[in-house]
Amino acid sequence: MNANPAPPDRFAFKMLATDGAARLGKIHTPRGAIRTPAFMPVGTAGTVKALYPEQVRDAGSDIILGNTYHLMLRPGAERVGQLGGLHEFMRWPGPILTDSGGFQVMSLAAKRKISEEGAAFASHLDGSRHMLSPERSIEIQCLLGADILMQLDECLELPAAREEVRRAMELSLRWAERSKRSFEDQQRAGLAGVGQALFAIVQGGTDEELRLASAEALVAMDFPGYAVGGLAVGESQEAMLRTLEVTVPLLPELKPRYLMGVGTPDDLIEAVARGIDMFDCVLPTRNGRHGVAFTWSGRINLKNACHADDATPLDPLSSCPAARDYSRAYLHHLIKAGEMLGSMMISWINVTFYQDLMAAMRMAIAEDRFAVWAKETKARLSAGAS
Amino acid sequence: MNANPAPPDRFAFKMLATDGAARLGKIHTPRGAIRTPAFMPVGTAGTVKALYPEQVRDAGSDIILGNTYHLMLRPGAERVGQLGGLHEFMRWPGPILTDSGGFQVMSLAAKRKISEEGAAFASHLDGSRHMLSPERSIEIQCLLGADILMQLDECLELPAAREEVRRAMELSLRWAERSKRSFEDQQRAGLAGVGQALFAIVQGGTDEELRLASAEALVAMDFPGYAVGGLAVGESQEAMLRTLEVTVPLLPELKPRYLMGVGTPDDLIEAVARGIDMFDCVLPTRNGRHGVAFTWSGRINLKNACHADDATPLDPLSSCPAARDYSRAYLHHLIKAGEMLGSMMISWINVTFYQDLMAAMRMAIAEDRFAVWAKETKARLSAGAS
Repeated sequence: MNANPAPPDRFAFKMLATDGAARLGKIHTPRGAIRTPAFMPVGTAGTVKALYPEQVRDAGSDIILGNTYHLMLRPGAERVGQLGGLHEFMRWPGPILTDSGGFQVMSLAAKRKISEEGAAFASHLDGSRHMLSPERSIEIQCLLGADILMQLDECLELPAAREEVRRAMELSLRWAERSKRSFEDQQRAGLAGVGQALFAIVQGGTDEELRLASAEALVAMDFPGYAVGGLAVGESQEAMLRTLEVTVPLLPELKPRYLMGVGTPDDLIEAVARGIDMFDCVLPTRNGRHGVAFTWSGRINLKNACHADDATPLDPLSSCPAARDYSRAYLHHLIKAGEMLGSMMISWINVTFYQDLMAAMRMAIAEDRFAVWAKETKARLSAGAS
Repeated sequence: MNANPAPPDRFAFKMLATDGAARLGKIHTPRGAIRTPAFMPVGTAGTVKALYPEQVRDAGSDIILGNTYHLMLRPGAERVGQLGGLHEFMRWPGPILTDSGGFQVMSLAAKRKISEEGAAFASHLDGSRHMLSPERSIEIQCLLGADILMQLDECLELPAAREEVRRAMELSLRWAERSKRSFEDQQRAGLAGVGQALFAIVQGGTDEELRLASAEALVAMDFPGYAVGGLAVGESQEAMLRTLEVTVPLLPELKPRYLMGVGTPDDLIEAVARGIDMFDCVLPTRNGRHGVAFTWSGRINLKNACHADDATPLDPLSSCPAARDYSRAYLHHLIKAGEMLGSMMISWINVTFYQDLMAAMRMAIAEDRFAVWAKETKARLSAGAS
């Protein structure tokens, strides 16, 4: 468990404790430390929707995610670069991870055409044509100034034919090599620092053999961190967890492991139990905007009429003031009336809940009681939903 | 200038200084003091749109306004009363002024029919039928727990025929009497406190003679404060100011004077110069939501492309962090991208600007230099708009 201490200007991962497969750790970046297991709120277009950066930070977030696809289209990567990078632009001084844009090309863009070169597509905003190659994705992520960059990969919706999954996985491997080369070029050119890190993405759908092939090839390329991609795209939770059980043991022990785009509180607990260190997901903010709150008594839909006269606070166990100071009746009213403050407060409550959950997981691992904690917490969260 | 000091549980107005017709004062209410000239941000449906209550307060707001029309329809006055009143519901511990609902019946409701009894109308939300009488309006405002209540009046859009303006003004006088009687009944029944105050509303359009008749009759009824209503409803600024010049001198010197629904920064300066003490207006929040900012260099439309690459802050003179810490390019991006944070930050900037403006006016009156300050400030505000 003794990773060599790294100088503070370099990227480094330190494992502090394990409890079964669950791991407590710390990622050092030049912009600050990331306590793992970590949840990264999604700041799609340069803002974690409906939250001030101070709220995101005070909720316990060490790192946020920015979306290459959205930012390249608006306001444009070169513009953000000119303005001093994404940290300066959105005034988030801590670490930022940017995705490669591959997932949004699959889920948002029109007229997409995947070739060996990269992903050609039309913007969902104005129909303009773009080409996202591994090299261009790295260039954009360097312009944004990401602390952690992701390789371009091809994402498929599941279910998909095995040969299709294999083809996309193998293409993603070649893109991983090109991404790595391109990132090293950027570093040599002084356009990226030694403290920035590029993560690879293991693909292969829910197929054990394909995951193995992907992981082995990527591990041989020696990345500083590894993501498990291509999950939470239509498969069952059971299939996702089975895939994790197959994939995670193939990854280097002393490097961070990131499960992309996941998930519900239950997903997070189960994935941490299987050795995952990092997560990102739009659930807390997207649900928050629509009046669905995550609490220590489960998910609560504040649109429901049962809350209209309820003077009790939403969640007395929350560390978010909005969950304790306001009545359910008031939150219900704000959501029913379409008032922005409702979306603002429930997004804030939800991001806080996710970070409180991560903190509880870290504590449970440190105290060697993760399995018991997980069982009790899963029961608590599934009990009281309304 | 020596109003007798009132016990803190009673409503009282104290004049501290005058400078020409402009007045510096303080309204005492059981829920706190209101520094005048005062601007009241509008909290239509139990929230000053897109702002946390702490931001409203920290911007320098001593009092906010709540809308009887909106709140009676959703969530319902009886419900708010059950939940402890509007202060508790929205967690605004300071004074609240509620309007009577009359203006929104005119501007929002369907199928409205004004009779001697009151205003019958259909809800703009669900078409349900309601009757807002002077008595019901007072009852609602008491259920909400307003610190300052407004009499029900009939508002007309201008221009209107003189006989129509006279009829509405005379009806509003009879409603003033009924409102006063009804409020005294509520106080006797213990449903309103001695520290709450009911204001009368002078009507009469832009007609000098009708304003005189309205003011004289209402002054004879001895209200603790007087509003000038029926302005900012289609007439020119010139006509509005002329009407103020005619009306304000008819009002008691030692009672607060409230110009309803006004206005631009320039309107506020001109009205203070004519002896007005209180304002409310949706401009700072409504414009803020749509990306138009009020600054010390004038109004700035952040949607304009000229801001896309501008790394400078919006307003270095603002006391709002969002106007100093973020670039115009970022605010432009947020507004263009339809991100809630853009509306949140520009609403915050605007409410802060309005309160900074009021503070500057109070200081100028205290230092007996209001006329010079007003001239310089009007020039500054009209110079740099973009």
